Amino acid sequence: MNTFGTNFRLTTYGESHGAALGGIVDGMPPGVKLDMQSIQSMLDRRRTGRDTLTSQRREEDVPEILSGITGDGVTLGTPIGFIFRNKDARSGDYREVEHRYRPNHADYCYEQRYGLRDARGGGRSSARETVCRVMGGALAMQALHSRYPALTIEARVTSVGGVGYDDVLRLLSENATDTRLPYDEKLEEDMRQAVAATRDRHDSVGGVVTCLVKGLPAGVGNPVFGKLHAVLAAAMMSINAAKGFEYGLGCELAASHGSEVLDMFNPGFVPTLTSTNYSGGIQGGISNGMPIFFSVYFKPTPTISRPLEMPDEDGNLSELCVKGRHDPCVALRAPVIVESMAALTLADLTLIR
Amino acid sequence: MNTFGTNFRLTTYGESHGAALGGIVDGMPPGVKLDMQSIQSMLDRRRTGRDTLTSQRREEDVPEILSGITGDGVTLGTPIGFIFRNKDARSGDYREVEHRYRPNHADYCYEQRYGLRDARGGGRSSARETVCRVMGGALAMQALHSRYPALTIEARVTSVGGVGYDDVLRLLSENATDTRLPYDEKLEEDMRQAVAATRDRHDSVGGVVTCLVKGLPAGVGNPVFGKLHAVLAAAMMSINAAKGFEYGLGCELAASHGSEVLDMFNPGFVPTLTSTNYSGGIQGGISNGMPIFFSVYFKPTPTISRPLEMPDEDGNLSELCVKGRHDPCVALRAPVIVESMAALTLADLTLIR
Amino acid sequence: MNTFGTNFRLTTYGESHGAALGGIVDGMPPGVKLDMQSIQSMLDRRRTGRDTLTSQRREEDVPEILSGITGDGVTLGTPIGFIFRNKDARSGDYREVEHRYRPNHADYCYEQRYGLRDARGGGRSSARETVCRVMGGALAMQALHSRYPALTIEARVTSVGGVGYDDVLRLLSENATDTRLPYDEKLEEDMRQAVAATRDRHDSVGGVVTCLVKGLPAGVGNPVFGKLHAVLAAAMMSINAAKGFEYGLGCELAASHGSEVLDMFNPGFVPTLTSTNYSGGIQGGISNGMPIFFSVYFKPTPTISRPLEMPDEDGNLSELCVKGRHDPCVALRAPVIVESMAALTLADLTLIR
Amino acid sequence: MNTFGTNFRLTTYGESHGAALGGIVDGMPPGVKLDMQSIQSMLDRRRTGRDTLTSQRREEDVPEILSGITGDGVTLGTPIGFIFRNKDARSGDYREVEHRYRPNHADYCYEQRYGLRDARGGGRSSARETVCRVMGGALAMQALHSRYPALTIEARVTSVGGVGYDDVLRLLSENATDTRLPYDEKLEEDMRQAVAATRDRHDSVGGVVTCLVKGLPAGVGNPVFGKLHAVLAAAMMSINAAKGFEYGLGCELAASHGSEVLDMFNPGFVPTLTSTNYSGGIQGGISNGMPIFFSVYFKPTPTISRPLEMPDEDGNLSELCVKGRHDPCVALRAPVIVESMAALTLADLTLIR
Repeated sequence: MNTFGTNFRLTTYGESHGAALGGIVDGMPPGVKLDMQSIQSMLDRRRTGRDTLTSQRREEDVPEILSGITGDGVTLGTPIGFIFRNKDARSGDYREVEHRYRPNHADYCYEQRYGLRDARGGGRSSARETVCRVMGGALAMQALHSRYPALTIEARVTSVGGVGYDDVLRLLSENATDTRLPYDEKLEEDMRQAVAATRDRHDSVGGVVTCLVKGLPAGVGNPVFGKLHAVLAAAMMSINAAKGFEYGLGCELAASHGSEVLDMFNPGFVPTLTSTNYSGGIQGGISNGMPIFFSVYFKPTPTISRPLEMPDEDGNLSELCVKGRHDPCVALRAPVIVESMAALTLADLTLIR
Repeated sequence: MNTFGTNFRLTTYGESHGAALGGIVDGMPPGVKLDMQSIQSMLDRRRTGRDTLTSQRREEDVPEILSGITGDGVTLGTPIGFIFRNKDARSGDYREVEHRYRPNHADYCYEQRYGLRDARGGGRSSARETVCRVMGGALAMQALHSRYPALTIEARVTSVGGVGYDDVLRLLSENATDTRLPYDEKLEEDMRQAVAATRDRHDSVGGVVTCLVKGLPAGVGNPVFGKLHAVLAAAMMSINAAKGFEYGLGCELAASHGSEVLDMFNPGFVPTLTSTNYSGGIQGGISNGMPIFFSVYFKPTPTISRPLEMPDEDGNLSELCVKGRHDPCVALRAPVIVESMAALTLADLTLIR
Repeated sequence: MNTFGTNFRLTTYGESHGAALGGIVDGMPPGVKLDMQSIQSMLDRRRTGRDTLTSQRREEDVPEILSGITGDGVTLGTPIGFIFRNKDARSGDYREVEHRYRPNHADYCYEQRYGLRDARGGGRSSARETVCRVMGGALAMQALHSRYPALTIEARVTSVGGVGYDDVLRLLSENATDTRLPYDEKLEEDMRQAVAATRDRHDSVGGVVTCLVKGLPAGVGNPVFGKLHAVLAAAMMSINAAKGFEYGLGCELAASHGSEVLDMFNPGFVPTLTSTNYSGGIQGGISNGMPIFFSVYFKPTPTISRPLEMPDEDGNLSELCVKGRHDPCVALRAPVIVESMAALTLADLTLIR
Repeated sequence: MNTFGTNFRLTTYGESHGAALGGIVDGMPPGVKLDMQSIQSMLDRRRTGRDTLTSQRREEDVPEILSGITGDGVTLGTPIGFIFRNKDARSGDYREVEHRYRPNHADYCYEQRYGLRDARGGGRSSARETVCRVMGGALAMQALHSRYPALTIEARVTSVGGVGYDDVLRLLSENATDTRLPYDEKLEEDMRQAVAATRDRHDSVGGVVTCLVKGLPAGVGNPVFGKLHAVLAAAMMSINAAKGFEYGLGCELAASHGSEVLDMFNPGFVPTLTSTNYSGGIQGGISNGMPIFFSVYFKPTPTISRPLEMPDEDGNLSELCVKGRHDPCVALRAPVIVESMAALTLADLTLIR
């Protein structure tokens, strides 16, 4: 349904072109002084309309918090309700496709599921929904920091349409003492160029986001069905456009031999527990205290600004062009969403009262 | 915890070398005549000791069903309790490593989580636990067939240590009218050889399992957090040794452009809804009625029959060799487990009373 | 936590004197044309300030629906978010008791649970929270009616401070063919007088609400832990001030012999299944199609307009008077809340998609 | 379904005359040394066939524990699976009523719910199911004691068919410094006589069980829908034959005035928090550290040893007599079941990992 988590829960609502989107965070620890600036800064990273490489829809995305905090912004332990009013919806752009199914969109499936749908801007299936994930994630992050001050969660785009960093997971696996996401000015520019070129061709392009979690203690996760990486996988794959997930050395392990990828323990468990980290910080579904890292693969945005054959309910095709504003590369705005879902997952597993 | 599912639930228990493993399936539809032979045949596919490429532990794996069915084997709608007695456990093999942490095993993490662990055979973290998943999956399959007679779920090993089929997901994506898993006598033999060579080197090797679901109607899945592929991902990643998951064209989509991978609708929606199936049968988290397919990536078995440095609780290393019986390639027995988790997932989403 | 239900879920938030209260209904069936007038009419029955027997706080209690419906008020199947702005909060009334624990209030317990609390108007523990229950219940009622047009849920105050109807449950048990809540002009006036007299003495008084559900088909409910009456009990006991619950002939059955209270089946199951209904329409936790009825017992409002000894955090007592506006008899506004919780319970058990 | 609890979970299975009953306790804290004698002693209190006032079915009710503990009986933190084999089932007794609906039994409702049922001994709806509740409760009790050594949960029959103790809840409410369940030799004998007389008349009789919980700290319980007394109510009402629940002064509060039942705080919170305990230890759904007490009302056993008119599926009545062995007063064996459900409820709310 529309709830994520068991102990630290985010429940959301809202259509892309409806009055508002909003949600409830339940399970927030009491006594946490919220840092509103830090929350807004996460929301801003997801926001559209800030440069020419993302959708031109302009929303302020400033949340109104309706409950759960004192006048000073200290959490009460009661549920936090929040809303985001929609301001720059242009529903007229969708009139032509109201009775059409756009290829690779959820249009057809929603109608099969519910018998009707809100065609304006994709309704509930729009990526606009992720604004509530980031709000929930920002609150989760503050809750986590109140308990684990050293915890960091950082995600970055590591590849766009095949352009970007190579062997990121191997790099992270083999640098156990100084694990960090790679950064190369040249490659970053290459990726920006790749997106710009795609946009100019009225096309879209996929991408990879890699996330690194440091400072999580050992012992987090629940065998057997609730393995830490299984709940992370579900969290990441629930993000719009995600098509693949891997952690540690990931898919490459299927092509490896055991003797090559054993993370040997260091004597005295120093300076780090193991000398390598092919496992990605998780064994048997439980964290071992080493850095956790994983990659999420996103498909190209399905909407491209070209005329396309679209069927009506009876399967009659006509060539139409969707006018809505869209991202040429959904991965560009995904890192903060990936971080948010990671924070929600970890808060749910650790912040139990 | 140890429960999978909400409406159709499997709850399991059992240590590798304890008295028994067992479980409860709750939510079984009433009035289903169980085909015991078909259940046993799924259990046999998972069983060890049948050839020289799998662990030599010999367990009969014949379930005792304790409740939930009439004398004629018709389900009552009440919970089905079942047990598997352990018969061929050799706990002595583990005496030396009782106070040691084996590399890439769950030993260290279980102790961090629980403060103690059952060292014999890996206790609860052993792959022996999957016998209950297959029992649950076999019951789920029968429940699904009572409702969707045409539904098929088939998984196969498509790669071992880098040897095997290329571009399986592309093949499945582009053959929308006759989607089937590839089969090539020569490649199958190559994979067997690869495992045999690994075993002879006292090493282990990873592998890929690809699963194809046909006959599921459109409209299955729950946006936004309960997307069909997100729950499938969680189900698959919860299997021992899984490190990656992708569906449809999968990770390759991150390197693709939108214009190349649009699944265009067929006129009149015949002979199939779309002419290609890069999406893998799911849009917006909801099935569209096309075949669903995905791959699961398994790491090499962490136990290899060579002396390895292992620490005690204080981090003092000693060279030891684990004597237990293990698979050189965990992927070989994984297909029926993948099918079982897929059946459990689909039963949970569709068999709601 | 703050969620009620599994399949049809209400999640709520909001403090009595915060910016707003609100909630999310998830699991609403699609295609239901909402009757806004009927929703408002339920909300109005709960509203304060309408006569001199209830609290004088005046709130309009008109919900703003933010999602989940089309422009024409037809449900989309997506979550329905709603808010109620607080307008007539007088937080100043609570300044004196901010650091005091009021007797029989949740003040002390909230501080024990959370370490801090919102003292204004009781914060989250205020009966103002029930406005969201009624909104959820009104939506549940419409969803239920779309599936069971003949279903009725009616609750009434049957006793106030010991004044009122006698033997209501026996009456309902023994009139199987024409089951209805009793109504007597004289007794209704007696109850009003009893509340008025209490109010004039600056005291408060308890009361009983009896609820009658007709038109629910047989077969609803889940043994063994999810018995229909067990979930109804939890729903009713979660209402502020509820202290007791009984169904069918209820507590009196503990003083009865089996031979006196057997509901004998009618021949051919006509005109009703059984000739009496001591069971209250439920056997083994599952509805049998007969009317369901139960009573909920409410304690007197803990706040009375008299000076009372109240401790600070260290247990130092001082005599204080709470100025807030309160009901002399919480039971008077409870019937629509009881109906709402019954509707939510039944929607959760029957409206599964 | 067949699971109780969220964090500390009991899932059960088994028909009265099937091969076995059993269950799984998930969420058991690790490192608890189980006291098997104490577990067996709780099971023995529930056992039938021990005297002439209970059913003459003789089952040993010795559990086989299959997982989750070390050889020394120390819990591993993994799920504990257990089974009870059925030994003294006499299914022949039920042959005559196989196609008949017994009055006030679940027969008709199970068929409406599932389309078929296990007629032997009532199948899943039999009170034999409660053996698993007591096993789960006994494990919960040990888990609770490992954390709260001073916690006590004690339940007793306080009334049988109207014979027994008067004003028990008032007594408990007004003795805040020395709260204990009443005991009077003469009244106990009166109750035994009342049951014996009922048995001799081939009739059955209802009864009341009152439970007292001492030593639970303040701060346990979850507003708003998960109030401590609401989850207790659901737990108690899920026990076979329960028809009513009240806590604190209970239903009598509906006939009281606020000024009469205020629990005034003691200066310095000594010797107890409040001088009276009409609230029954819970305010706003959260424990306040005072003793918690409540009563559960049980109806007379529906099976009486007299010929009764019973319908077949078409409503044709015939006079039949059920031969099965039954309790003349179900309340006699209920106290340990009430204690078990209370322990499961409190373990679920407090033993969160």
